[in-house]
Amino acid sequence: MSNSFAETTFHVRYAETDAMGIVHHSVYPIWFEEARSEFMRRRGNNYAQVESAGYFFAVTGMQLRFHSPARYGHAVTVRAWVEKARSRGFTFAYEVRHADTGRRLVTGETKHICIDNQGRSSIIPPWLQEAMARQSEI
Amino acid sequence: MSNSFAETTFHVRYAETDAMGIVHHSVYPIWFEEARSEFMRRRGNNYAQVESAGYFFAVTGMQLRFHSPARYGHAVTVRAWVEKARSRGFTFAYEVRHADTGRRLVTGETKHICIDNQGRSSIIPPWLQEAMARQSEI
Amino acid sequence: MSNSFAETTFHVRYAETDAMGIVHHSVYPIWFEEARSEFMRRRGNNYAQVESAGYFFAVTGMQLRFHSPARYGHAVTVRAWVEKARSRGFTFAYEVRHADTGRRLVTGETKHICIDNQGRSSIIPPWLQEAMARQSEI
Amino acid sequence: MSNSFAETTFHVRYAETDAMGIVHHSVYPIWFEEARSEFMRRRGNNYAQVESAGYFFAVTGMQLRFHSPARYGHAVTVRAWVEKARSRGFTFAYEVRHADTGRRLVTGETKHICIDNQGRSSIIPPWLQEAMARQSEI
Repeated sequence: MSNSFAETTFHVRYAETDAMGIVHHSVYPIWFEEARSEFMRRRGNNYAQVESAGYFFAVTGMQLRFHSPARYGHAVTVRAWVEKARSRGFTFAYEVRHADTGRRLVTGETKHICIDNQGRSSIIPPWLQEAMARQSEI
Repeated sequence: MSNSFAETTFHVRYAETDAMGIVHHSVYPIWFEEARSEFMRRRGNNYAQVESAGYFFAVTGMQLRFHSPARYGHAVTVRAWVEKARSRGFTFAYEVRHADTGRRLVTGETKHICIDNQGRSSIIPPWLQEAMARQSEI
Repeated sequence: MSNSFAETTFHVRYAETDAMGIVHHSVYPIWFEEARSEFMRRRGNNYAQVESAGYFFAVTGMQLRFHSPARYGHAVTVRAWVEKARSRGFTFAYEVRHADTGRRLVTGETKHICIDNQGRSSIIPPWLQEAMARQSEI
Repeated sequence: MSNSFAETTFHVRYAETDAMGIVHHSVYPIWFEEARSEFMRRRGNNYAQVESAGYFFAVTGMQLRFHSPARYGHAVTVRAWVEKARSRGFTFAYEVRHADTGRRLVTGETKHICIDNQGRSSIIPPWLQEAMARQSEI
Protein backbone atom coordinates (compact mmCIF):
# COMPACT_ATOMS: atom_id res chain seq x y z
CA MET A 1 0.00 0.00 0.00
CA SER A 2 2.67 2.45 1.07
CA ASN A 3 4.51 1.95 -2.17
CA SER A 4 1.64 2.76 -4.48
CA PHE A 5 2.82 6.36 -4.36
CA ALA A 6 6.19 8.08 -4.61
CA GLU A 7 7.56 10.86 -2.48
CA THR A 8 10.44 13.23 -2.88
CA THR A 9 11.70 15.75 -0.31
CA PHE A 10 13.78 18.85 -1.07
CA HIS A 11 14.39 22.41 0.08
CA VAL A 12 12.52 25.38 -1.35
CA ARG A 13 14.86 27.22 -3.70
CA TYR A 14 15.24 30.96 -3.17
CA ALA A 15 14.48 31.61 -6.86
CA GLU A 16 11.09 29.93 -6.32
CA THR A 17 9.92 32.66 -3.94
CA ASP A 18 8.24 35.87 -5.03
CA ALA A 19 7.90 39.40 -3.66
CA MET A 20 5.15 38.23 -1.26
CA GLY A 21 7.88 36.15 0.40
CA ILE A 22 6.22 32.85 -0.51
CA VAL A 23 6.69 30.21 -3.21
CA HIS A 24 5.09 31.46 -6.42
CA HIS A 25 2.06 29.42 -7.45
CA SER A 26 3.58 28.54 -10.85
CA VAL A 27 6.29 26.52 -9.08
CA TYR A 28 3.99 23.75 -7.81
CA PRO A 29 3.35 22.19 -11.25
CA ILE A 30 7.15 21.83 -11.48
CA TRP A 31 7.28 20.11 -8.09
CA PHE A 32 4.36 17.87 -9.13
CA GLU A 33 6.34 16.88 -12.21
CA GLU A 34 9.40 16.12 -10.14
CA ALA A 35 7.32 13.80 -7.91
CA ARG A 36 5.89 12.18 -11.07
CA SER A 37 9.44 11.66 -12.33
CA GLU A 38 10.31 10.05 -9.00
CA PHE A 39 7.26 7.79 -9.34
CA MET A 40 8.54 6.61 -12.73
CA ARG A 41 12.14 6.19 -11.59
CA ARG A 42 11.02 4.00 -8.69
CA ARG A 43 9.19 1.74 -11.10
CA GLY A 44 12.33 1.31 -13.16
CA ASN A 45 11.21 3.65 -15.91
CA ASN A 46 12.98 6.88 -16.21
CA TYR A 47 10.71 9.14 -18.24
CA ALA A 48 13.83 9.86 -20.34
CA GLN A 49 13.59 6.18 -21.43
CA VAL A 50 9.92 6.57 -22.28
CA GLU A 51 10.84 9.44 -24.61
CA SER A 52 13.71 7.42 -26.11
CA ALA A 53 11.15 4.71 -26.95
CA GLY A 54 9.21 7.32 -28.92
CA TYR A 55 6.41 8.08 -26.49
CA PHE A 56 5.56 11.34 -24.80
CA PHE A 57 3.02 12.31 -22.18
CA ALA A 58 1.31 15.57 -23.01
CA VAL A 59 -0.37 17.43 -20.18
CA THR A 60 -4.01 18.11 -21.09
CA GLY A 61 -5.19 19.66 -17.85
CA MET A 62 -4.27 20.50 -14.30
CA GLN A 63 -5.87 21.88 -11.19
CA LEU A 64 -4.35 23.02 -7.95
CA ARG A 65 -5.60 24.15 -4.55
CA PHE A 66 -3.37 26.29 -2.37
CA HIS A 67 -3.98 25.66 1.32
CA SER A 68 -0.96 27.26 2.96
CA PRO A 69 2.17 28.92 1.54
CA ALA A 70 5.66 27.38 1.37
CA ARG A 71 8.60 29.65 2.15
CA TYR A 72 12.35 29.72 1.68
CA GLY A 73 13.96 27.77 4.53
CA HIS A 74 11.28 25.07 4.39
CA ALA A 75 11.85 21.54 3.24
CA VAL A 76 8.82 20.13 1.45
CA THR A 77 7.66 16.62 0.66
CA VAL A 78 5.75 16.04 -2.57
CA ARG A 79 3.73 12.86 -2.95
CA ALA A 80 2.41 11.63 -6.31
CA TRP A 81 0.13 8.72 -7.18
CA VAL A 82 -1.96 7.50 -10.11
CA GLU A 83 -5.54 8.59 -9.52
CA LYS A 84 -7.00 7.12 -12.71
CA ALA A 85 -5.48 4.94 -15.45
CA ARG A 86 -6.93 4.61 -18.94
CA SER A 87 -5.64 3.00 -22.12
CA ARG A 88 -4.53 6.31 -23.64
CA GLY A 89 -3.79 8.38 -20.59
CA PHE A 90 -3.92 8.79 -16.84
CA THR A 91 -4.51 11.26 -14.05
CA PHE A 92 -1.92 11.89 -11.37
CA ALA A 93 -2.78 13.38 -7.98
CA TYR A 94 -0.39 15.22 -5.64
CA GLU A 95 0.02 16.48 -2.16
CA VAL A 96 2.71 18.92 -1.02
CA ARG A 97 3.44 19.00 2.70
CA HIS A 98 5.85 20.87 4.95
CA ALA A 99 8.45 18.15 5.57
CA ASP A 100 8.91 18.89 9.28
CA THR A 101 5.41 19.74 10.47
CA GLY A 102 3.44 17.67 7.96
CA ARG A 103 1.23 20.70 7.31
CA ARG A 104 -0.61 20.36 4.01
CA LEU A 105 0.37 23.14 1.61
CA VAL A 106 -0.96 22.33 -1.86
CA THR A 107 -3.00 19.57 -3.48
CA GLY A 108 -3.73 19.02 -7.13
CA GLU A 109 -3.91 16.78 -10.14
CA THR A 110 -2.65 16.64 -13.71
CA LYS A 111 -4.12 14.84 -16.73
CA HIS A 112 -1.94 13.28 -19.40
CA ILE A 113 -2.38 11.57 -22.73
CA CYS A 114 0.14 9.38 -24.45
CA ILE A 115 1.31 10.61 -27.84
CA ASP A 116 3.70 9.00 -30.30
CA ASN A 117 6.59 10.77 -32.00
CA GLN A 118 4.28 11.89 -34.82
CA GLY A 119 2.24 13.83 -32.26
CA ARG A 120 -0.73 11.43 -32.51
CA SER A 121 -2.69 10.13 -29.56
CA SER A 122 -1.52 6.58 -28.83
CA ILE A 123 -2.35 3.62 -26.61
CA ILE A 124 0.13 3.45 -23.74
CA PRO A 125 2.47 0.55 -24.62
CA PRO A 126 1.88 -2.54 -22.39
CA TRP A 127 5.37 -2.47 -20.83
CA LEU A 128 4.70 1.07 -19.67
CA GLN A 129 1.19 0.32 -18.40
CA GLU A 130 2.60 -2.54 -16.37
CA ALA A 131 5.42 -0.44 -15.00
CA MET A 132 3.01 2.23 -13.85
CA ALA A 133 0.67 -0.25 -12.17
CA ARG A 134 3.64 -1.93 -10.47
CA GLN A 135 4.47 -1.39 -6.84
CA SER A 136 7.60 0.63 -6.21
CA GLU A 137 10.82 -1.34 -6.59
CA ILE A 138 12.60 0.68 -3.98
CA MET B 1 -17.99 45.26 -23.89
CA SER B 2 -14.67 44.94 -25.62
CA ASN B 3 -12.94 46.68 -22.75
CA SER B 4 -14.22 44.44 -20.01
CA PHE B 5 -11.16 42.29 -20.57
CA ALA B 6 -7.45 42.99 -21.07
CA GLU B 7 -5.12 41.47 -23.59
CA THR B 8 -1.38 41.35 -23.91
CA THR B 9 0.64 39.95 -26.81
CA PHE B 10 4.26 38.81 -26.68
CA HIS B 11 6.68 36.28 -28.13
CA VAL B 12 7.29 32.89 -26.57
CA ARG B 13 10.67 33.00 -24.82
CA TYR B 14 13.12 30.22 -25.64
CA ALA B 15 13.60 29.50 -21.94
CA GLU B 16 9.87 28.73 -21.72
CA THR B 17 10.16 25.70 -24.00
CA ASP B 18 11.02 22.20 -22.83
CA ALA B 19 12.63 19.10 -24.33
CA MET B 20 9.35 18.22 -26.09
CA GLY B 21 9.89 21.41 -28.11
CA ILE B 22 6.78 23.09 -26.68
CA VAL B 23 6.07 25.63 -23.97
CA HIS B 24 6.17 23.89 -20.58
CA HIS B 25 2.78 23.74 -18.88
CA SER B 26 4.07 25.57 -15.78
CA VAL B 27 4.60 28.71 -17.89
CA TYR B 28 0.92 29.42 -18.52
CA PRO B 29 0.13 30.51 -14.94
CA ILE B 30 2.90 33.11 -15.39
CA TRP B 31 1.31 34.32 -18.63
CA PHE B 32 -2.09 34.40 -16.92
CA GLU B 33 -0.59 36.59 -14.22
CA GLU B 34 0.95 38.91 -16.77
CA ALA B 35 -2.51 39.34 -18.42
CA ARG B 36 -4.00 39.97 -14.94
CA SER B 37 -1.32 42.63 -14.34
CA GLU B 38 -2.24 44.20 -17.67
CA PHE B 39 -5.91 44.17 -16.62
CA MET B 40 -5.00 46.10 -13.46
CA ARG B 41 -2.68 48.54 -15.24
CA ARG B 42 -5.42 49.42 -17.74
CA ARG B 43 -7.75 50.26 -14.86
CA GLY B 44 -5.19 52.62 -13.42
CA ASN B 45 -4.11 50.27 -10.67
CA ASN B 46 -0.74 48.80 -10.93
CA TYR B 47 -0.75 45.75 -8.65
CA ALA B 48 2.49 47.19 -7.22
CA GLN B 49 0.31 50.05 -5.87
CA VAL B 50 -2.14 47.57 -4.37
CA GLU B 51 0.74 46.00 -2.46
CA SER B 52 2.03 49.42 -1.38
CA ALA B 53 -1.41 50.08 0.08
CA GLY B 54 -0.98 46.97 2.23
CA TYR B 55 -3.16 44.51 0.32
CA PHE B 56 -2.17 41.31 -1.39
CA PHE B 57 -4.04 38.84 -3.53
CA ALA B 58 -3.24 35.27 -2.61
CA VAL B 59 -3.95 32.59 -5.19
CA THR B 60 -6.19 29.92 -3.64
CA GLY B 61 -6.77 27.76 -6.69
CA MET B 62 -6.21 27.42 -10.39
CA GLN B 63 -7.21 25.16 -13.24
CA LEU B 64 -5.94 24.96 -16.77
CA ARG B 65 -6.88 23.10 -19.94
CA PHE B 66 -4.27 22.60 -22.63
CA HIS B 67 -5.82 22.49 -26.10
CA SER B 68 -2.81 22.96 -28.38
CA PRO B 69 0.88 23.63 -27.67
CA ALA B 70 2.68 26.98 -28.07
CA ARG B 71 6.18 26.91 -29.53
CA TYR B 72 9.22 29.15 -29.79
CA GLY B 73 8.75 31.49 -32.75
CA HIS B 74 5.07 32.01 -31.94
CA ALA B 75 3.58 35.24 -30.71
CA VAL B 76 0.72 34.63 -28.28
CA THR B 77 -2.15 36.76 -27.06
CA VAL B 78 -3.37 36.27 -23.50
CA ARG B 79 -6.79 37.61 -22.54
CA ALA B 80 -7.92 38.00 -18.90
CA TRP B 81 -11.26 38.98 -17.45
CA VAL B 82 -13.07 38.86 -14.10
CA GLU B 83 -15.29 35.80 -14.08
CA LYS B 84 -16.72 36.29 -10.60
CA ALA B 85 -16.33 39.12 -8.06
CA ARG B 86 -16.99 38.73 -4.34
CA SER B 87 -16.38 40.99 -1.36
CA ARG B 88 -13.24 39.14 -0.29
CA GLY B 89 -11.99 37.75 -3.56
CA PHE B 90 -12.55 37.10 -7.23
CA THR B 91 -12.03 34.60 -10.01
CA PHE B 92 -10.15 35.51 -13.17
CA ALA B 93 -10.55 33.58 -16.42
CA TYR B 94 -8.04 33.42 -19.27
CA GLU B 95 -7.62 32.43 -22.86
CA VAL B 96 -4.27 32.05 -24.62
CA ARG B 97 -4.36 32.20 -28.42
CA HIS B 98 -1.79 32.01 -31.20
CA ALA B 99 -1.53 35.72 -32.12
CA ASP B 100 -1.43 35.17 -35.90
CA THR B 101 -3.84 32.30 -36.44
CA GLY B 102 -6.15 32.91 -33.48
CA ARG B 103 -5.89 29.22 -32.62
CA ARG B 104 -6.91 28.58 -29.03
CA LEU B 105 -4.03 27.12 -27.04
CA VAL B 106 -4.88 27.17 -23.34
CA THR B 107 -7.82 28.24 -21.18
CA GLY B 108 -8.03 28.48 -17.43
CA GLU B 109 -8.98 30.33 -14.32
CA THR B 110 -7.41 31.42 -11.04
CA LYS B 111 -9.07 32.16 -7.69
CA HIS B 112 -7.83 34.89 -5.38
CA ILE B 113 -8.56 36.19 -1.93
CA CYS B 114 -7.61 39.57 -0.58
CA ILE B 115 -5.32 39.52 2.45
CA ASP B 116 -3.96 42.41 4.50
CA ASN B 117 -0.34 42.84 5.51
CA GLN B 118 -0.92 40.72 8.62
CA GLY B 119 -1.81 37.79 6.39
CA ARG B 120 -5.51 37.92 7.34
CA SER B 121 -8.38 37.59 4.90
CA SER B 122 -9.76 41.07 4.20
CA ILE B 123 -12.62 42.78 2.37
CA ILE B 124 -11.34 44.22 -0.90
CA PRO B 125 -11.12 48.00 -0.29
CA PRO B 126 -13.85 49.95 -2.17
CA TRP B 127 -11.41 51.90 -4.36
CA LEU B 128 -10.00 48.62 -5.60
CA GLN B 129 -13.42 47.01 -6.13
CA GLU B 130 -14.43 50.02 -8.20
CA ALA B 131 -11.24 49.96 -10.21
CA MET B 132 -11.70 46.30 -11.05
CA ALA B 133 -15.33 46.76 -12.09
CA ARG B 134 -14.37 49.78 -14.19
CA GLN B 135 -14.10 49.60 -17.95
CA SER B 136 -10.58 49.85 -19.31
CA GLU B 137 -9.21 53.40 -19.43
CA ILE B 138 -7.09 52.70 -22.45
CA MET C 1 24.12 53.22 -36.31
CA SER C 2 20.98 53.20 -34.23
CA ASN C 3 19.84 50.00 -35.90
CA SER C 4 22.97 47.99 -35.17
CA PHE C 5 21.28 46.90 -31.96
CA ALA C 6 17.81 45.68 -31.04
CA GLU C 7 15.69 46.70 -28.09
CA THR C 8 12.64 45.23 -26.49
CA THR C 9 10.57 46.74 -23.68
CA PHE C 10 8.25 44.84 -21.34
CA HIS C 11 6.93 44.78 -17.79
CA VAL C 12 8.60 42.84 -15.01
CA ARG C 13 6.49 39.73 -14.31
CA TYR C 14 5.50 39.09 -10.72
CA ALA C 15 6.86 35.53 -10.95
CA GLU C 16 10.28 37.01 -11.74
CA THR C 17 10.59 38.64 -8.33
CA ASP C 18 11.97 36.90 -5.24
CA ALA C 19 11.55 37.22 -1.47
CA MET C 20 13.93 40.22 -1.44
CA GLY C 21 11.25 42.01 -3.49
CA ILE C 22 13.51 42.34 -6.53
CA VAL C 23 13.93 40.50 -9.82
CA HIS C 24 15.91 37.31 -9.20
CA HIS C 25 19.35 37.37 -10.83
CA SER C 26 18.63 34.19 -12.82
CA VAL C 27 15.96 36.08 -14.79
CA TYR C 28 18.34 38.40 -16.64
CA PRO C 29 19.84 35.70 -18.90
CA ILE C 30 16.23 35.04 -20.02
CA TRP C 31 15.71 38.73 -20.77
CA PHE C 32 19.05 38.82 -22.61
CA GLU C 33 17.86 35.91 -24.73
CA GLU C 34 14.59 37.66 -25.48
CA ALA C 35 16.53 40.74 -26.70
CA ARG C 36 18.75 38.42 -28.80
CA SER C 37 15.60 36.87 -30.29
CA GLU C 38 14.35 40.38 -31.10
CA PHE C 39 17.72 41.15 -32.74
CA MET C 40 17.27 38.10 -35.00
CA ARG C 41 13.62 38.80 -35.77
CA ARG C 42 14.46 42.35 -36.87
CA ARG C 43 17.01 40.97 -39.29
CA GLY C 44 14.41 38.69 -40.84
CA ASN C 45 15.66 35.58 -39.13
CA ASN C 46 13.55 34.13 -36.50
CA TYR C 47 15.83 31.86 -34.47
CA ALA C 48 13.11 29.20 -34.94
CA GLN C 49 14.04 29.28 -38.65
CA VAL C 50 17.72 28.89 -37.83
CA GLU C 51 16.87 25.72 -35.90
CA SER C 52 14.64 24.47 -38.74
CA ALA C 53 17.67 24.83 -41.03
CA GLY C 54 19.56 22.46 -38.73
CA TYR C 55 21.72 24.95 -36.83
CA PHE C 56 21.77 25.72 -33.14
CA PHE C 57 23.62 28.26 -31.07
CA ALA C 58 24.98 26.78 -27.88
CA VAL C 59 25.80 29.16 -25.05
CA THR C 60 29.42 28.59 -23.97
CA GLY C 61 29.75 31.39 -21.43
CA MET C 62 28.06 34.36 -19.86
CA GLN C 63 28.84 37.14 -17.44
CA LEU C 64 26.58 39.66 -15.78
CA ARG C 65 27.00 42.73 -13.60
CA PHE C 66 24.12 43.85 -11.41
CA HIS C 67 24.09 47.62 -10.91
CA SER C 68 20.62 48.28 -9.54
CA PRO C 69 17.61 46.01 -8.94
CA ALA C 70 14.48 45.81 -11.11
CA ARG C 71 11.14 45.47 -9.30
CA TYR C 72 7.57 44.48 -10.07
CA GLY C 73 5.75 47.52 -11.46
CA HIS C 74 8.76 48.55 -13.55
CA ALA C 75 8.93 48.41 -17.31
CA VAL C 76 12.42 47.54 -18.53
CA THR C 77 14.20 47.97 -21.85
CA VAL C 78 16.75 45.36 -22.87
CA ARG C 79 19.23 46.22 -25.61
CA ALA C 80 21.31 43.55 -27.41
CA TRP C 81 24.11 43.91 -29.97
CA VAL C 82 26.86 41.78 -31.48
CA GLU C 83 30.07 42.54 -29.63
CA LYS C 84 32.29 40.16 -31.59
CA ALA C 85 31.63 38.00 -34.66
CA ARG C 86 33.73 35.00 -35.62
CA SER C 87 33.32 32.27 -38.22
CA ARG C 88 32.06 29.71 -35.70
CA GLY C 89 30.47 31.89 -33.07
CA PHE C 90 29.84 35.33 -31.68
CA THR C 91 29.54 37.33 -28.51
CA PHE C 92 26.42 39.34 -27.70
CA ALA C 93 26.41 42.22 -25.22
CA TYR C 94 23.40 43.56 -23.31
CA GLU C 95 22.16 46.43 -21.27
CA VAL C 96 18.99 46.41 -19.17
CA ARG C 97 17.57 49.83 -18.25
CA HIS C 98 14.55 51.05 -16.35
CA ALA C 99 12.27 52.07 -19.24
CA ASP C 100 11.03 55.30 -17.66
CA THR C 101 14.08 56.67 -15.90
CA GLY C 102 16.77 55.18 -18.13
CA ARG C 103 18.60 53.98 -15.03
CA ARG C 104 21.06 51.22 -15.88
CA LEU C 105 20.15 48.00 -14.06
CA VAL C 106 22.22 45.14 -15.46
CA THR C 107 24.90 44.70 -18.13
CA GLY C 108 26.38 41.51 -19.48
CA GLU C 109 27.46 39.35 -22.36
CA THR C 110 26.92 35.83 -23.66
CA LYS C 111 29.18 33.71 -25.90
CA HIS C 112 27.77 31.32 -28.47
CA ILE C 113 29.07 28.73 -30.88
CA CYS C 114 27.26 27.38 -33.90
CA ILE C 115 26.58 23.65 -33.85
CA ASP C 116 24.92 21.44 -36.46
CA ASN C 117 22.19 18.91 -35.77
CA GLN C 118 24.83 16.25 -35.03
CA GLY C 119 26.06 18.39 -32.13
CA ARG C 120 29.32 19.29 -33.92
CA SER C 121 30.86 22.75 -34.01
CA SER C 122 30.08 24.30 -37.39
CA ILE C 123 30.90 27.38 -39.44
CA ILE C 124 27.97 29.80 -39.31
CA PRO C 125 26.27 29.47 -42.74
CA PRO C 126 26.86 32.57 -44.97
CA TRP C 127 23.16 33.54 -45.14
CA LEU C 128 23.08 33.71 -41.36
CA GLN C 129 26.37 35.62 -41.08
CA GLU C 130 25.00 38.17 -43.53
CA ALA C 131 21.71 38.46 -41.69
CA MET C 132 23.47 39.11 -38.40
CA ALA C 133 25.78 41.76 -39.88
CA ARG C 134 22.81 43.42 -41.59
CA GLN C 135 21.22 46.59 -40.28
CA SER C 136 17.78 46.16 -38.80
CA GLU C 137 15.00 45.90 -41.36
CA ILE C 138 12.48 47.50 -39.09
CA MET D 1 39.65 20.00 3.72
CA SER D 2 36.77 18.02 2.26
CA ASN D 3 34.31 19.98 4.34
CA SER D 4 35.38 23.42 3.16
CA PHE D 5 32.82 23.06 0.42
CA ALA D 6 29.24 21.87 0.24
CA GLU D 7 27.66 19.57 -2.32
CA THR D 8 24.11 18.80 -3.22
CA THR D 9 22.89 16.17 -5.68
CA PHE D 10 19.51 16.13 -7.42
CA HIS D 11 17.79 15.15 -10.65
CA VAL D 12 17.38 17.52 -13.56
CA ARG D 13 13.75 18.67 -13.65
CA TYR D 14 11.91 18.36 -16.94
CA ALA D 15 10.85 22.02 -16.75
CA GLU D 16 14.54 22.96 -16.70
CA THR D 17 15.13 21.63 -20.22
CA ASP D 18 14.58 23.65 -23.39
CA ALA D 19 13.72 22.90 -27.02
CA MET D 20 17.39 21.94 -27.69
CA GLY D 21 16.78 19.04 -25.30
CA ILE D 22 19.28 20.35 -22.77
CA VAL D 23 19.11 22.28 -19.50
CA HIS D 24 18.61 25.97 -20.27
CA HIS D 25 21.62 28.11 -19.33
CA SER D 26 19.51 30.33 -17.02
CA VAL D 27 18.94 27.34 -14.72
CA TYR D 28 22.54 27.04 -13.51
CA PRO D 29 22.47 30.24 -11.40
CA ILE D 30 19.51 28.66 -9.58
CA TRP D 31 21.48 25.46 -8.99
CA PHE D 32 24.46 27.53 -7.82
CA GLU D 33 22.18 29.25 -5.33
CA GLU D 34 20.85 25.94 -4.08
CA ALA D 35 24.45 24.74 -3.45
CA ARG D 36 25.15 28.06 -1.68
CA SER D 37 22.06 27.47 0.49
CA GLU D 38 23.36 24.00 1.29
CA PHE D 39 26.73 25.52 2.21
CA MET D 40 24.97 27.82 4.70
CA ARG D 41 22.70 25.09 6.10
CA ARG D 42 25.71 22.87 6.80
CA ARG D 43 27.32 25.67 8.78
CA GLY D 44 24.23 25.98 10.94
CA ASN D 45 22.97 29.11 9.22
CA ASN D 46 19.96 28.82 7.12
CA TYR D 47 19.97 31.85 4.85
CA ALA D 48 16.36 32.35 5.99
CA GLN D 49 17.82 33.10 9.46
CA VAL D 50 20.27 35.58 7.98
CA GLU D 51 17.33 37.45 6.44
CA SER D 52 15.40 37.28 9.72
CA ALA D 53 18.38 38.97 11.37
CA GLY D 54 17.98 41.85 8.91
CA TYR D 55 20.81 41.06 6.49
CA PHE D 56 20.61 40.22 2.81
CA PHE D 57 23.20 39.19 0.28
CA ALA D 58 22.76 41.00 -3.00
CA VAL D 59 24.31 39.43 -6.08
CA THR D 60 26.57 41.99 -7.78
CA GLY D 61 28.04 39.82 -10.51
CA MET D 62 28.23 36.33 -11.92
CA GLN D 63 30.06 34.44 -14.62
CA LEU D 64 29.52 30.97 -15.97
CA ARG D 65 31.29 28.65 -18.40
CA PHE D 66 29.33 25.88 -20.07
CA HIS D 67 31.49 22.84 -20.79
CA SER D 68 28.94 20.13 -21.52
CA PRO D 69 25.14 20.06 -21.39
CA ALA D 70 23.00 18.47 -18.68
CA ARG D 71 19.88 16.61 -19.80
CA TYR D 72 16.65 15.28 -18.31
CA GLY D 73 17.34 11.86 -16.80
CA HIS D 74 20.69 12.99 -15.38
CA ALA D 75 21.44 13.44 -11.73
CA VAL D 76 23.84 16.32 -11.13
CA THR D 77 26.10 17.26 -8.24
CA VAL D 78 26.68 20.95 -7.54
CA ARG D 79 29.64 21.95 -5.39
CA ALA D 80 29.99 25.44 -3.84
CA TRP D 81 32.82 27.00 -1.89
CA VAL D 82 33.97 30.45 -0.77
CA GLU D 83 36.57 31.67 -3.25
CA LYS D 84 37.21 35.04 -1.60
CA ALA D 85 35.96 36.56 1.68
CA ARG D 86 35.95 40.27 2.41
CA SER D 87 34.47 42.34 5.22
CA ARG D 88 31.48 43.45 3.16
CA GLY D 89 31.07 40.60 0.73
CA PHE D 90 32.41 37.40 -0.74
CA THR D 91 32.80 35.42 -3.92
CA PHE D 92 31.44 31.90 -4.24
CA ALA D 93 32.72 29.45 -6.86
CA TYR D 94 30.83 26.43 -8.24
CA GLU D 95 31.24 23.27 -10.20
CA VAL D 96 28.37 21.24 -11.65
CA ARG D 97 29.16 17.61 -12.50
CA HIS D 98 27.21 14.68 -13.89
CA ALA D 99 26.60 12.69 -10.69
CA ASP D 100 27.29 9.25 -12.22
CA THR D 101 30.16 9.92 -14.61
CA GLY D 102 31.75 12.87 -12.83
CA ARG D 103 31.86 14.74 -16.14
CA ARG D 104 32.26 18.47 -15.60
CA LEU D 105 29.28 20.35 -16.99
CA VAL D 106 29.41 23.96 -15.82
CA THR D 107 31.72 26.11 -13.69
CA GLY D 108 31.19 29.63 -12.44
CA GLU D 109 31.25 32.17 -9.68
CA THR D 110 28.95 34.72 -8.08
CA LYS D 111 29.84 37.92 -6.18
CA HIS D 112 27.79 39.12 -3.24
CA ILE D 113 27.68 42.11 -0.95
CA CYS D 114 26.01 42.28 2.43
CA ILE D 115 23.21 44.83 2.74
CA ASP D 116 21.10 45.75 5.75
CA ASN D 117 17.32 46.06 5.76
CA GLN D 118 17.62 49.72 4.69
CA GLY D 119 19.31 48.58 1.48
CA ARG D 120 22.71 49.96 2.56
CA SER D 121 26.01 48.13 2.15
CA SER D 122 26.98 46.65 5.51
CA ILE D 123 29.85 44.83 7.17
CA ILE D 124 29.02 41.14 7.45
CA PRO D 125 28.16 40.59 11.14
CA PRO D 126 30.89 38.63 13.03
CA TRP D 127 28.65 35.63 13.83
CA LEU D 128 27.98 35.22 10.12
CA GLN D 129 31.64 35.67 9.12
CA GLU D 130 32.57 32.98 11.61
CA ALA D 131 29.87 30.64 10.41
CA MET D 132 31.00 30.98 6.82
CA ALA D 133 34.66 30.37 7.66
CA ARG D 134 33.68 27.36 9.77
CA GLN D 135 34.14 23.81 8.60
CA SER D 136 30.95 21.97 7.82
CA GLU D 137 29.11 20.65 10.87
CA ILE D 138 27.72 17.69 9.01
